Amino acid sequence: MSPRTPRFRGVVPPIVTPLTTEGEVDAASLERLVEFLIEAGVDALFALGSSGESAFLTDSRRDRALEVVIGTAAGRVPVLAGCIETTTPRVIERAEIAAKLGADAVVVTPPFYARVHPVEVDRHFRAVKAAVEVPLLAYDVPVSVHTKLTVEQTLALAADGVIDGLKDSSGDDVGFRQVVLGAAGMPGFSALTGHEVVVDAMMLAGADGAVPGLANVDPHGYVRLLRACAEARWADARAEQDRLARLFRIVEAASPDSAGGSTRGVGAFKTALALRKVIDRPAVAAPMRELTAEETRTVAARLEEAGLL
Amino acid sequence: MSPRTPRFRGVVPPIVTPLTTEGEVDAASLERLVEFLIEAGVDALFALGSSGESAFLTDSRRDRALEVVIGTAAGRVPVLAGCIETTTPRVIERAEIAAKLGADAVVVTPPFYARVHPVEVDRHFRAVKAAVEVPLLAYDVPVSVHTKLTVEQTLALAADGVIDGLKDSSGDDVGFRQVVLGAAGMPGFSALTGHEVVVDAMMLAGADGAVPGLANVDPHGYVRLLRACAEARWADARAEQDRLARLFRIVEAASPDSAGGSTRGVGAFKTALALRKVIDRPAVAAPMRELTAEETRTVAARLEEAGLL
Amino acid sequence: MSPRTPRFRGVVPPIVTPLTTEGEVDAASLERLVEFLIEAGVDALFALGSSGESAFLTDSRRDRALEVVIGTAAGRVPVLAGCIETTTPRVIERAEIAAKLGADAVVVTPPFYARVHPVEVDRHFRAVKAAVEVPLLAYDVPVSVHTKLTVEQTLALAADGVIDGLKDSSGDDVGFRQVVLGAAGMPGFSALTGHEVVVDAMMLAGADGAVPGLANVDPHGYVRLLRACAEARWADARAEQDRLARLFRIVEAASPDSAGGSTRGVGAFKTALALRKVIDRPAVAAPMRELTAEETRTVAARLEEAGLL
Amino acid sequence: MSPRTPRFRGVVPPIVTPLTTEGEVDAASLERLVEFLIEAGVDALFALGSSGESAFLTDSRRDRALEVVIGTAAGRVPVLAGCIETTTPRVIERAEIAAKLGADAVVVTPPFYARVHPVEVDRHFRAVKAAVEVPLLAYDVPVSVHTKLTVEQTLALAADGVIDGLKDSSGDDVGFRQVVLGAAGMPGFSALTGHEVVVDAMMLAGADGAVPGLANVDPHGYVRLLRACAEARWADARAEQDRLARLFRIVEAASPDSAGGSTRGVGAFKTALALRKVIDRPAVAAPMRELTAEETRTVAARLEEAGLL
Repeated sequence: MSPRTPRFRGVVPPIVTPLTTEGEVDAASLERLVEFLIEAGVDALFALGSSGESAFLTDSRRDRALEVVIGTAAGRVPVLAGCIETTTPRVIERAEIAAKLGADAVVVTPPFYARVHPVEVDRHFRAVKAAVEVPLLAYDVPVSVHTKLTVEQTLALAADGVIDGLKDSSGDDVGFRQVVLGAAGMPGFSALTGHEVVVDAMMLAGADGAVPGLANVDPHGYVRLLRACAEARWADARAEQDRLARLFRIVEAASPDSAGGSTRGVGAFKTALALRKVIDRPAVAAPMRELTAEETRTVAARLEEAGLL
Repeated sequence: MSPRTPRFRGVVPPIVTPLTTEGEVDAASLERLVEFLIEAGVDALFALGSSGESAFLTDSRRDRALEVVIGTAAGRVPVLAGCIETTTPRVIERAEIAAKLGADAVVVTPPFYARVHPVEVDRHFRAVKAAVEVPLLAYDVPVSVHTKLTVEQTLALAADGVIDGLKDSSGDDVGFRQVVLGAAGMPGFSALTGHEVVVDAMMLAGADGAVPGLANVDPHGYVRLLRACAEARWADARAEQDRLARLFRIVEAASPDSAGGSTRGVGAFKTALALRKVIDRPAVAAPMRELTAEETRTVAARLEEAGLL
Repeated sequence: MSPRTPRFRGVVPPIVTPLTTEGEVDAASLERLVEFLIEAGVDALFALGSSGESAFLTDSRRDRALEVVIGTAAGRVPVLAGCIETTTPRVIERAEIAAKLGADAVVVTPPFYARVHPVEVDRHFRAVKAAVEVPLLAYDVPVSVHTKLTVEQTLALAADGVIDGLKDSSGDDVGFRQVVLGAAGMPGFSALTGHEVVVDAMMLAGADGAVPGLANVDPHGYVRLLRACAEARWADARAEQDRLARLFRIVEAASPDSAGGSTRGVGAFKTALALRKVIDRPAVAAPMRELTAEETRTVAARLEEAGLL
Repeated sequence: MSPRTPRFRGVVPPIVTPLTTEGEVDAASLERLVEFLIEAGVDALFALGSSGESAFLTDSRRDRALEVVIGTAAGRVPVLAGCIETTTPRVIERAEIAAKLGADAVVVTPPFYARVHPVEVDRHFRAVKAAVEVPLLAYDVPVSVHTKLTVEQTLALAADGVIDGLKDSSGDDVGFRQVVLGAAGMPGFSALTGHEVVVDAMMLAGADGAVPGLANVDPHGYVRLLRACAEARWADARAEQDRLARLFRIVEAASPDSAGGSTRGVGAFKTALALRKVIDRPAVAAPMRELTAEETRTVAARLEEAGLL
């Protein structure tokens, strides 16, 4: 549909990081998860994103998780690596390691904790780009970094070859549409949506692919969904998306009275993967908590409804 | 596509309120605008919304604007009336007047200025519903009221027959999708999106119609767009939407260094309507400002690109 | 201490508006409250502020409340009138009525609901000033209007004689200090703090007076407090303030699981006033709720601790 | 004044981290700065806080800075170490290193980037406390972490001996006052304010000490200020604070059109220290920028006014 030939496209699960009860990377589970996703037909993997608990892993655990993903993928699909750190020097340090470990691209947010001006956000991406050889994707996730990338910023960075794509988890589909329109003449640019329940709509709007956390749990569904979009079978796409949108409500299983957004999302994905026997256990990093037995039953019920159990 | 038969659907422009240089309602221009929109084939009109400068009009001007819209529409299309006020007693007062003036529905936001709990937001809508006979639509516009209607709140109010629909200007398409899914079994519920640049995507996602401010300027475009959606010509829908998304950038004409969001949006729509000779002048209410001559040229250029001048 | 001779100073309670069970102004209770406050020695009254439920009253109820306050005060203390409306034309309409009813000053927030630029906020205050004869105080209350007046804006408006004072409910004591410093050479400017639990500290920092919602309940305490400050008896001031800070926790009586900030504050003040037999009943406007019997007992217990029951 | 004997009190500068032009820690400058502060009479040092560019330093640079501060202080004053990281495992890792390097306390924020529930924030502090031996201070800095510690959370953690103090940079002096009141019976608790322009007021309100970024530049002023507070010479305290409040406006020197809050603050402090010949150069970490020559002249002019150049 698009005249573009984006470097990254299709289904790109932000892979979760299975943990041991001590909080270490559970390499065996992670390997199984990588296999599960690749066999389902995903197009790439995004390691160490928000769903990958990047913010919850020590650097050595980050390195270990990335090694396992890259090693297991073994070139069958590209691996994008989140380099989620507060500021430029810290991001560059992580990006250098990711590149050395073999990541096919790095994914970088605007600075956080620091209080920065848009001009400084721009400088941040340019400095990271200058420091590493691999492609760079901007990760727009204001719910976590509390700074929104504007359409203008994104397109300026894209036009100058600083960023090779956008991973949009902003919820601002209006802005995403304008980025897609503005990037029409930039053939390699990858516009990836992180909104797992409107992927059909965003593909219609011109997205190149999706990074749905829920694709950890049901990669086959997202693969079918993106195939339907690619073949312009929009009614099929919508039906598949509607099914996935219902499944997505597993993120409501954990009580909002005792669980924050990270627990509710990642905790549910891991619980579902444990129920599906892909990973050994649903352990999450502190200060998150595992889902309770009752919450786990809610997840199980939704998986059954979706035909996944 | 949907088994629902929503009461309100299709293109529902949030009609702007043309003003005289003294700030009074310019009835002649408003009549022409109503005719222009109805002749273009819109399905309903939404008066006194954010685009209608409801928050900028004294009560007598609000009454006057609503009278003109309802009188001119003369039953050809339904007229929804915004009743945008801080709290329950003030909303009810406005809703009673709107009903008396002949509005076919009232559109109500959560309380603002007041600091309220979700339980109180729920009580607010129930009290308004109890006080007026006409259908009630919830208006989710957190950028203005700083409270977001949750999926749960919306569906609970819909299930109890308190609200007859949702006008979503929240930017949260993920939540909108969940509302659409949850309302599947509520035949009369109207799910209207306010996101003018992703209407194609939201229609694919199950919206019943759209309330695009830009439809003041190019109603024909939105009528074509929704027709394409209704006929499942999604590639056509996307092409039309892309054209409209480009046109929408008239809202960037006014400098962000001296104009807030209200001026940038409403000011641009009125400027375009004056350039198109539908209304007499682009006057806006204080403390907004009219677009400068240079900014007006930017709007004119975009109109020309879009074939509207 | 200050070389300034501010027009308004001392204890300025933001007087609550007692209501009947039907939501009308309870004039008899309001008269008693005015007498109670004046007899306690307050320096002025601020009617129709946030504590006065301005955002919850229809215009006719606003007018009635203001009439009663001004009529009962009968010139013994000045009456400031809140003109809390979304935008310039609506504020001016309210300000003209307030002036006609005899208010000694009007108190005006930045626009809300509307999305405005700082330049437009500035224009707003200038337009209001141009429209009414009475003194104008800026009301900085970002928790309700979601726009913060900056130090620069405030001082520019003060230097140009647009605003005669500031009622600071922003929580930004750092900014307040800078305003006080910047206004050192503006003799008539009134710097009033709305932070009832740090009045001693703000008086030390140069405030001219305080607008404590809690002064509805314990005006004698605030009168003692400000006298101690005026006489540089800072240890006494702190002890009085500490007592009032403990009393202020009546605003925590209403459960945060079912009551928003408005209910928790105004509801508690009215409950305390009813317990103290100053007003007939603790009725609040919709969608707020009255405190439950148990919550009321909590308020009573705190009043007893404070020696007020 | 307080019956408490807090572990940390008085002037506790959040020491900046001088850098080389390559971004490495400039140890010689940092040593001189430590000497400058200790000779001025400060009571403790807070290394690796926001002013210390903790979020901008790689881990090895953080370690180096902390080593230099602790080594130079050599036990003359206690050294508190910021352990500013996104989540529990990462904070614990930093806290263990800080303790090993000899820090007298660690200072920890709520989680950031992660989306957490208050229950999870509580768990976070308890887990950190369980992991390290040294005293733990909570750092309330919502402008950076976007979560506010509530009065209830803080007092519950203090009552259980989890936190030994609070470093309040929230701007919420009302909450701070309630914490001070609530901690009255906890003798070792340290209530430290981070609001450099209202230290007099916060000391009157019961603070035990202050952590003013500006104390890097003018430690003598803050030492005089806290001495006046300790001796209840409140008029002197206010006069000293007013002088410092004027000096604080050096943080407005960098243009808000091209510099974020971090640059404006830290950049100004470092510029002033370089002008005062305490550190070699005003280098800041990316993506911040140094002040321009013109902005530097503004800083110099303010230093001269304050008698510091």
